[in-house]
Amino acid sequence: MEKLIVDSPADVPTRMQETYIENYRILTQNTGRLMMLSCDQKIEHLNNDFFGEHVPRDQKYGFGPLHLFDIARNANIGAMAAQCGLIARYGKEYESVNYIAKLNSKTNIIKTKHKDPISSQLWTLEDVNFINENTKINIRGVGYTIYLGSEFEQVMLTEAAQIIFQAHQYGLIAILWIYPRGKHVGLEDDIQLIAGAGGVANALGADFVKLKAPAKTRKKSSAELLKIAVQAAGNTKVICSGGQKITPKKFLDELYEQIHIGGTAGNATGRNIFQHELHEAVAMADAIAAIVYDNKSVNEAVTIFNKAKD
Amino acid sequence: MEKLIVDSPADVPTRMQETYIENYRILTQNTGRLMMLSCDQKIEHLNNDFFGEHVPRDQKYGFGPLHLFDIARNANIGAMAAQCGLIARYGKEYESVNYIAKLNSKTNIIKTKHKDPISSQLWTLEDVNFINENTKINIRGVGYTIYLGSEFEQVMLTEAAQIIFQAHQYGLIAILWIYPRGKHVGLEDDIQLIAGAGGVANALGADFVKLKAPAKTRKKSSAELLKIAVQAAGNTKVICSGGQKITPKKFLDELYEQIHIGGTAGNATGRNIFQHELHEAVAMADAIAAIVYDNKSVNEAVTIFNKAKD
Amino acid sequence: MEKLIVDSPADVPTRMQETYIENYRILTQNTGRLMMLSCDQKIEHLNNDFFGEHVPRDQKYGFGPLHLFDIARNANIGAMAAQCGLIARYGKEYESVNYIAKLNSKTNIIKTKHKDPISSQLWTLEDVNFINENTKINIRGVGYTIYLGSEFEQVMLTEAAQIIFQAHQYGLIAILWIYPRGKHVGLEDDIQLIAGAGGVANALGADFVKLKAPAKTRKKSSAELLKIAVQAAGNTKVICSGGQKITPKKFLDELYEQIHIGGTAGNATGRNIFQHELHEAVAMADAIAAIVYDNKSVNEAVTIFNKAKD
Amino acid sequence: MEKLIVDSPADVPTRMQETYIENYRILTQNTGRLMMLSCDQKIEHLNNDFFGEHVPRDQKYGFGPLHLFDIARNANIGAMAAQCGLIARYGKEYESVNYIAKLNSKTNIIKTKHKDPISSQLWTLEDVNFINENTKINIRGVGYTIYLGSEFEQVMLTEAAQIIFQAHQYGLIAILWIYPRGKHVGLEDDIQLIAGAGGVANALGADFVKLKAPAKTRKKSSAELLKIAVQAAGNTKVICSGGQKITPKKFLDELYEQIHIGGTAGNATGRNIFQHELHEAVAMADAIAAIVYDNKSVNEAVTIFNKAKD
Amino acid sequence: MEKLIVDSPADVPTRMQETYIENYRILTQNTGRLMMLSCDQKIEHLNNDFFGEHVPRDQKYGFGPLHLFDIARNANIGAMAAQCGLIARYGKEYESVNYIAKLNSKTNIIKTKHKDPISSQLWTLEDVNFINENTKINIRGVGYTIYLGSEFEQVMLTEAAQIIFQAHQYGLIAILWIYPRGKHVGLEDDIQLIAGAGGVANALGADFVKLKAPAKTRKKSSAELLKIAVQAAGNTKVICSGGQKITPKKFLDELYEQIHIGGTAGNATGRNIFQHELHEAVAMADAIAAIVYDNKSVNEAVTIFNKAKD
Repeated sequence: MEKLIVDSPADVPTRMQETYIENYRILTQNTGRLMMLSCDQKIEHLNNDFFGEHVPRDQKYGFGPLHLFDIARNANIGAMAAQCGLIARYGKEYESVNYIAKLNSKTNIIKTKHKDPISSQLWTLEDVNFINENTKINIRGVGYTIYLGSEFEQVMLTEAAQIIFQAHQYGLIAILWIYPRGKHVGLEDDIQLIAGAGGVANALGADFVKLKAPAKTRKKSSAELLKIAVQAAGNTKVICSGGQKITPKKFLDELYEQIHIGGTAGNATGRNIFQHELHEAVAMADAIAAIVYDNKSVNEAVTIFNKAKD
Repeated sequence: MEKLIVDSPADVPTRMQETYIENYRILTQNTGRLMMLSCDQKIEHLNNDFFGEHVPRDQKYGFGPLHLFDIARNANIGAMAAQCGLIARYGKEYESVNYIAKLNSKTNIIKTKHKDPISSQLWTLEDVNFINENTKINIRGVGYTIYLGSEFEQVMLTEAAQIIFQAHQYGLIAILWIYPRGKHVGLEDDIQLIAGAGGVANALGADFVKLKAPAKTRKKSSAELLKIAVQAAGNTKVICSGGQKITPKKFLDELYEQIHIGGTAGNATGRNIFQHELHEAVAMADAIAAIVYDNKSVNEAVTIFNKAKD
Repeated sequence: MEKLIVDSPADVPTRMQETYIENYRILTQNTGRLMMLSCDQKIEHLNNDFFGEHVPRDQKYGFGPLHLFDIARNANIGAMAAQCGLIARYGKEYESVNYIAKLNSKTNIIKTKHKDPISSQLWTLEDVNFINENTKINIRGVGYTIYLGSEFEQVMLTEAAQIIFQAHQYGLIAILWIYPRGKHVGLEDDIQLIAGAGGVANALGADFVKLKAPAKTRKKSSAELLKIAVQAAGNTKVICSGGQKITPKKFLDELYEQIHIGGTAGNATGRNIFQHELHEAVAMADAIAAIVYDNKSVNEAVTIFNKAKD
Repeated sequence: MEKLIVDSPADVPTRMQETYIENYRILTQNTGRLMMLSCDQKIEHLNNDFFGEHVPRDQKYGFGPLHLFDIARNANIGAMAAQCGLIARYGKEYESVNYIAKLNSKTNIIKTKHKDPISSQLWTLEDVNFINENTKINIRGVGYTIYLGSEFEQVMLTEAAQIIFQAHQYGLIAILWIYPRGKHVGLEDDIQLIAGAGGVANALGADFVKLKAPAKTRKKSSAELLKIAVQAAGNTKVICSGGQKITPKKFLDELYEQIHIGGTAGNATGRNIFQHELHEAVAMADAIAAIVYDNKSVNEAVTIFNKAKD
Repeated sequence: MEKLIVDSPADVPTRMQETYIENYRILTQNTGRLMMLSCDQKIEHLNNDFFGEHVPRDQKYGFGPLHLFDIARNANIGAMAAQCGLIARYGKEYESVNYIAKLNSKTNIIKTKHKDPISSQLWTLEDVNFINENTKINIRGVGYTIYLGSEFEQVMLTEAAQIIFQAHQYGLIAILWIYPRGKHVGLEDDIQLIAGAGGVANALGADFVKLKAPAKTRKKSSAELLKIAVQAAGNTKVICSGGQKITPKKFLDELYEQIHIGGTAGNATGRNIFQHELHEAVAMADAIAAIVYDNKSVNEAVTIFNKAKD
C-alpha cells in the first residue's frame, strides 16, 4: 500500500492541519483504514458484556476495566474507544494507547418499545483537549452515537454536527456511530437505511462512520450490499461494528469480505475481542489488525490468532 | 435586463454592505433571480434520491456525493445548497462553486402522522464564517427550513429569525425553505397557506423564500396563483422548489410560467438535475439557468438541454 | 392638554432617561396616549388579512407589505408595530416612521383547542439596538404577546419580564399584548380576566398594555367595565386592540368611549385601517389620531375620515 | 429583646457581610422577626383580591397598585414583597419603603387538577442589583415560590438554590415561599409535609421560609404543630402566610399563637391588610407589627387597630 | 495498613494534584476507605427521618439540623454529606467538619409509579469553590445522584459527567450515588444492575460510588455478590448505603462483610447513626469508623458503641 495522502476538511484550522493529519495517520497506521477496540459497553450494556455466560468461567467476578486497557496496550489496535471518564481514570497508566473519546452514552435499561433512544453529550471538546494538554495521554479522535429515526433524532444530529466541527477545530478525528432505531424505524439492518446513515455521516462532516453490516437479501450478500452504503458515505470512511461474539474464523471471514468486497475501511470490535482471556484477546485483536492494516488473508489472520493463543 | 440596483437590509452592518451586495450579485448573476442546486437530500431523504429506480441503471451503487459537486462545478448554477458538513468535506476540492450552507436538516424516517416535523439548527453562523475565513471556499448565503403549523413551529421561527439576522451581520444572503406541515395543517399546497409562508419569510427578514408551487384551482393555474404569494412575500424573493423528477420539457415549462406568469425569482432544483448522469445533469442545470438568468424561452432551454446531452 | 410630565421607571439607567422620555413623548405625541398601527399580522394571521373578501376587490393579489409602510409614512400615527425582520427589510426606505419592534409571533394554524398557544421571542434587545445604532431607523419601543392561562404561560411571562427590563435598559418603551387564551381559560373577554391581564402587565413593569375590550354585561357597557382594567393596570397605560373590520363610525364611537368613559390611553389598530385602499387607510388612521392625540369628538373624526377619502 | 447578634451564611462574601447584616437588621427591626406585606397577588391571583365582594363597596373599580404602596409607606412593616416590575414602576415614588423583590410568579388560571403548578424565574439578581445601584430604592431581599411535589419541582428547586446563593453574594436576604402542591400531593396542610417544606428551605440555604399554618389535628392545635416545622427548619426562620381575610381579632390571635406557641418568626400578610381602606389597612399592619416587632399582646394590638381606624 | 499511594486522575490539573491527594487522604484517613455521614435527607425524605416513630420519644419535635452537625463534629467520620445550602448555613460554626457537598436532590413526594425520578443539579462547582475560598469551611468532595434507567437518565448522566470533570479541575473528590429506578427498571437490588451501576460510575470518572447492597440470591450472600460490583467498578471505590435503621450489631455485621468479603471501601450511613440521641449517635459513628478506618472486628466495634453510649 502506497504512502497515504491525507488532506484535512475545511473545518480544520490551518494551524491544526498537521495535528489532524498526524492523528489520521496514526489511527489508520498510514493505511486509511481504522481498527478500533470498542470499550464503551460499561455504560451502553452495563455489566452484561463483562459477567455471565459469554465470559470465560474462571473469571469468577467478570472482567473489570483493566482487562480492556491491558488488551489495548498489548495488541496492535488503531485506537481504544472509551468514555472520557474511563480514559481519565486509567489513561495515565496506559499512555502508549491511542484513544477515541466517546462523548455520549446511554444505558440499555429502557427498551426502544418503551421509549425512543436518546444519548446526549456528556463531555465537551474542551474536556478532551484538557486531557491532551494536561497529560501524556493521546486522545486522537472523538466518537458520538446517533439513533437515526428516534423521536430525539434532532438532539443527536445537532450535538453530532457541533462535535464534528469542534473536533476538527482541535485537529481531532471525528467518528460517528449511526444506528437507525426507534418505534417508527422499520428494519434496522435494511441496506437503504444503513446507506442513508452513511450519507448522513458524510453530510454532517464525519471522518469515519460506524455502521452495522446490513442484512443480506435474497440476491445479495451483506458485503455486496455494503457497497451501496460506502458509495453513499462518500469520503466518510465506513467501518462495521462487531456485534455479538462469534467464532474467530467466522468473524475474520466477515471482516475480510466487508473490506475487500464491501469496500469498507476497517471495523470497531468489542465483545469479539474482550470476551476472551487477555492472551487470546490480544491475539484476536492482532488477527483483526492483520487484515485491516496489513492486508493479510483470512487464513493468515487465523494463524496469527492460533499462534498467539498457544 | 438593466444593471441591478441592490441595497442591503437594515440588519447588515455598514462595513459588511459591500460584502452583502457582492454576494447578492454573484448568487443572482446580477439579475435579482436565483438558481439553486439543492443538495441537502442526503439527510432529508437519506439515500432514497441517490439509489433505486429513479437513478440511471448503470449506477450500480447509486450516486455518491461527488456527483453533486461535479454538477455544481461544471454547470451554470447560482449556488449549491448543502449542509455545512458536506461543504467542509469537499469544498476545498471545489473552490469555484458558490455555496449556500444549509443550517438545519432532519431525516424522513418519522412521518408527519406520527410526529409533527422539527428540524433544528446544526451549525452556527460562526461556523460558516470560519470556513469562509479559513479557506478559499465561498459560502455566500445560508438556508434554513421552517415547517409552518408544526407544533414545533416556534423552535424553527426563533432559530430562523436569529439565523437571518446573524447571516446579515456577516453580509451573507438568508434563504428560508418554508413548508406548511403538521397534523393540524390542512392542504399543504393551498395558495392561502403558501402565500402566508411567503409573508412569514418577509416578516422574518429573509432575502429569498423557497416555496412549493401551489395546487391549481378550478379557476386558476398554479403559476397564476403564485402571484398572490409573490405579493405577500413583498421584497423577499420567491423561488419554487423542484420536487420529484419529471420530463425536462415539463419541468422547464413550469419554471418559465412560475417566473413569467407568477413573478417568482428563480428556483431550487435537486432531483430534476442530479438524477441524471453527469453530462445530462449539467445540461439540465444549464437549461434551467438559461431561463432564470438569461431570460431564454422554454424552447431555447430545451435546445440547450438536448445539445448538451449529445 | 397640558405639558406632559414623564418620569422613567427604575429600570431605566440614569444615562438613558433622556432617551426614554424622548421616546415616550414622541410615541404619545406629548399626550401620554398612544395610537399604534398594528402590522404584525403577516405572521399572526398569515395572508388572511391581506387577501380575500375583506380586501378591496381591485386588489387582485391582495395587499403587500408596502401598503402597510405607505400608510405609516403618510398618516398621523404614533408608531407602526411590526416584526424586526419586516422593519429590517423596509425601514431604510421609511425612515420617518416611528417603530415598535414586535419581538414574538406565532401563526394561527394550530387552534387553541388542539394546543395551547405559545409565542416565543424571535429577536433580542441587542438586535433592536443594532438597527437603531446602525441606521437612521427609529425603533422607539418593543412589543411582546403573552397568552395568559396557556400551559406555556411561564415561558411568555419570563420572556416578557426580561424584555421589559432590557428595553428600559436601552431607554425603549415596553408594550405588552396580553390575551387570556388556552383550553383552561373560560371567557376570554370577561372583565375580571382582562383586568387581571392589566394587572399582570403592571407587575411585569410594562409601560403600555394592549387588551381586548371586555364583553359588555347586562348592567354595564364595555367602556364602563374598562375602568376596572384601567384601575388594575395602575400606571401601565391601557390601549385597546382594534379587532375585525367594522364601519369607521362604529369604530370611532367605540374608541371615543374607551378613552373618555373607560379611561384608556389609546388604541392599536390594524385591519380597520389597512383593509382600506391607501388614501382611505390614511384617512382612517388620521381620524383615529384625531381622537387619541387631539381630543377631537367622534363627529370631527368622522369628518376627517370623510374629507380625506374624497 | 436584647441586641440581635447576626452572622452571615458562608455564601455571603466577606465584603458583603456588612450589607447582609444591615439588610437583616432593617428587615427584622433588630428583632430577628419579619413582618412582610405580601403584594405579589396582581399576578398570583390576577384581579380577584382587588375587586369584588372582599373589597369595600365604595371602591367602585377596585383597589389599584397605589393602594399597596400607600399602605407600605404609612405602616410599620418590615418589607413590601412585590414583583420587580411593580417595584420598578413605583419605587422611585416610594423610596422610604423596604422591598423584597419577588422573582417568580404564575397566574391562578390553570388549576392543579389540570396541570401541576410551575412558577419560573422572571428576573435575575443582576436585575435586582441594578435597581439598588441605579436608584435610591432599597431592595433588601428576594423571594421565590416552590411548589413542592409538583412534577416541575426540580425546575423550582434548581432556581431557588441558585437565587439564594446569588442573593447572598449581593448581601441580600433570601426568602422562600414553599407550598406542597400537585396532583401527587396529599393534604397540603399536613404538618409532616409543611415541616418537610421547612427543612427543604434550610437545606437550600434560605434565611426565611413562608409556610402555611398546618391544619390542626385531633390532639394538637395548629400553633402547637408548628413547633415541628420550626424545628425542621433549623436556623431558617419560619413565617406564616396570612391567607383569606378574616376578622382582625381572629387574625391577631392566630398570629400571636404562631409566634409564642409555634415559635415562628413573623408573618407575611396580604389580603388581611390591603382589603381594608387605606386608613384601616395601615392600622391593621401596625397592629401586626406590634405583635411581631414589639412583642405586644393581642389586646394591645387590637387596641392599636381600633384606635388607628377611628 | 501501609502508607497509601494516591495518584490523581487525568482530569485533575497538575497544579491541583496536591490538593486532590490531600482531600483524598483526609477523607479516607489515609486508608483508601471512606466513611460518610449522609445528611441529605432533609430534601430527599423531607421530615420523615427526623420526626416520628423512628426517633427517640423524648425528641418531642424531632431532630433539627444541629443534631446532624453535632454528630459530625464529635464523631470520627470521614465526611458529612449535605446540600450546599445546609453547609452554607451552619458550616462556619462547624469548621472542623470535612464536607461532601451534595449537588442535587429531589423530594420523595412523587412516587416512581407516577413519574420516573429526576434529580437535577442545584449548585455549581463554582459555588462550592466559592465557599472553600471565602471561608474556613473544608468541602473536600462533591456528590451527585443518578437514577439509572429513569426516562430522565440522560439529564443525570450528563450533569454527573460534567460535575466529576469539574470537581477534579478543583482538586475535589467526586462521589456518585447510583440507584437503578424507574418504571422500566426491574429489580432495583439485582446484582447485575448494581454491578452495572458501578461500571457506569467508573466510565463517568467517579472516585467513589455509593450503591445499595444487592439482594442475596439462593446461592450467594449479598456480600459475596458485591464482589461482582466491585470488579465492575474498577478503580472507582464502592461504598454501600446504609438504609433503614436496624440494630447496631446487625448493621456492623453487614458492614464488616461488605468490606472484608465484598471488597467495598466503606459506607455512607445516615439513619442508622442520626436516629439515635447525640451521644449514642456519635458512638455508632465511631463504631462504624473503627471498622472502616481502623480495621477493627465487629466485636471491637460493638464494644466501642456500647462503651460510648454508657
